[in-house]
Amino acid sequence: MWSQHEISLEARPRGFHLITREVEAALPSLGSLNVGLAHLMLQHTSASLTVNENASPSVRDDFRSWFDSAVPEDASYWTHTLEGADDMPAHVKASLTGQDLTLPVRDGSFALGTWQGIYLCEHRDRGGSRRLIVTLSGE
Amino acid sequence: MWSQHEISLEARPRGFHLITREVEAALPSLGSLNVGLAHLMLQHTSASLTVNENASPSVRDDFRSWFDSAVPEDASYWTHTLEGADDMPAHVKASLTGQDLTLPVRDGSFALGTWQGIYLCEHRDRGGSRRLIVTLSGE
Amino acid sequence: MWSQHEISLEARPRGFHLITREVEAALPSLGSLNVGLAHLMLQHTSASLTVNENASPSVRDDFRSWFDSAVPEDASYWTHTLEGADDMPAHVKASLTGQDLTLPVRDGSFALGTWQGIYLCEHRDRGGSRRLIVTLSGE
Repeated sequence: MWSQHEISLEARPRGFHLITREVEAALPSLGSLNVGLAHLMLQHTSASLTVNENASPSVRDDFRSWFDSAVPEDASYWTHTLEGADDMPAHVKASLTGQDLTLPVRDGSFALGTWQGIYLCEHRDRGGSRRLIVTLSGE
Repeated sequence: MWSQHEISLEARPRGFHLITREVEAALPSLGSLNVGLAHLMLQHTSASLTVNENASPSVRDDFRSWFDSAVPEDASYWTHTLEGADDMPAHVKASLTGQDLTLPVRDGSFALGTWQGIYLCEHRDRGGSRRLIVTLSGE
Repeated sequence: MWSQHEISLEARPRGFHLITREVEAALPSLGSLNVGLAHLMLQHTSASLTVNENASPSVRDDFRSWFDSAVPEDASYWTHTLEGADDMPAHVKASLTGQDLTLPVRDGSFALGTWQGIYLCEHRDRGGSRRLIVTLSGE
């Protein structure tokens, strides 16, 4: 069984945002998969996806702090600066977690650990709505 | 052909550990796949997976040194500190390599390069046993 | 439908290189997939893959600057130094983006966003030709 779905994620501010429920709700056919995979691909280069802790907002706040510190906007080596100070750091941050994510599916839902959730990592100040392509396969 | 397997990885200290053989040994049905994919998902948020050099222990030692240096425990911006100094850095480190990994399968085994091995990246001092979900697909 | 392909990527200098067209051209069977996935695995531990901006060479230049700055060759903690100053940093850089990448396939080609392209991230000064295993699945 193969199916592909396009999901439009609402605009969010710079930061790390839990989107597990928003993605599941947009995938009614997930429920018919006994065993399989869900592949998620964000079609952008300044936002990305990762899996991390789903309970404490402070974890997501600290993600932003680390990424902003590790990929500084005022580094002297940036040359791609025409689109704003948050643009080139956003490209690098996006590749650190990556825009694609594959999750196991079992009994009609994502087989995630107790504390795992899907993060949308928004690296631009005004990134706008983000498009996600989800490919489901399995049986 | 689809199958899903749950593997319990033994507890290991903080650091980067080769687990290629442990994973292969737990997947007897791998041998029946001529061509396919093996998807590995670690069900945790403070440990992760990557592929890297399979020969020199010094490479794995240096991985730990870089990660500990790049994601410092004493950074002033951490706010999620209740679970210990190694907790929040472990979350960030886990997302830098990611908890999911997909490997090609050919002729009944992982199609890895000569020098490639699977690393369990344990970012906690006492992370305990780790659970891995492996989804095999192919023909 | 499953198929597996081995692609030899030409040698490139240290840096980030767009390879989308080179990969597509080596996959004639991609055109017969209506919906599916393309899994790419670079069989090395000092080069890697990512998706990022496909238009400005300055973005790719700045990727190199950030990676060289974040994983410095002269760090005092490196112990694996026998194979040259660029070797151990290359291993760490390779795991930051990862050597495997999964892309959605739709109507016979990669379903990438307008600005997305595939980067070969070459972290060695003289890495030589690189081998890529591509696994196509779908219907």
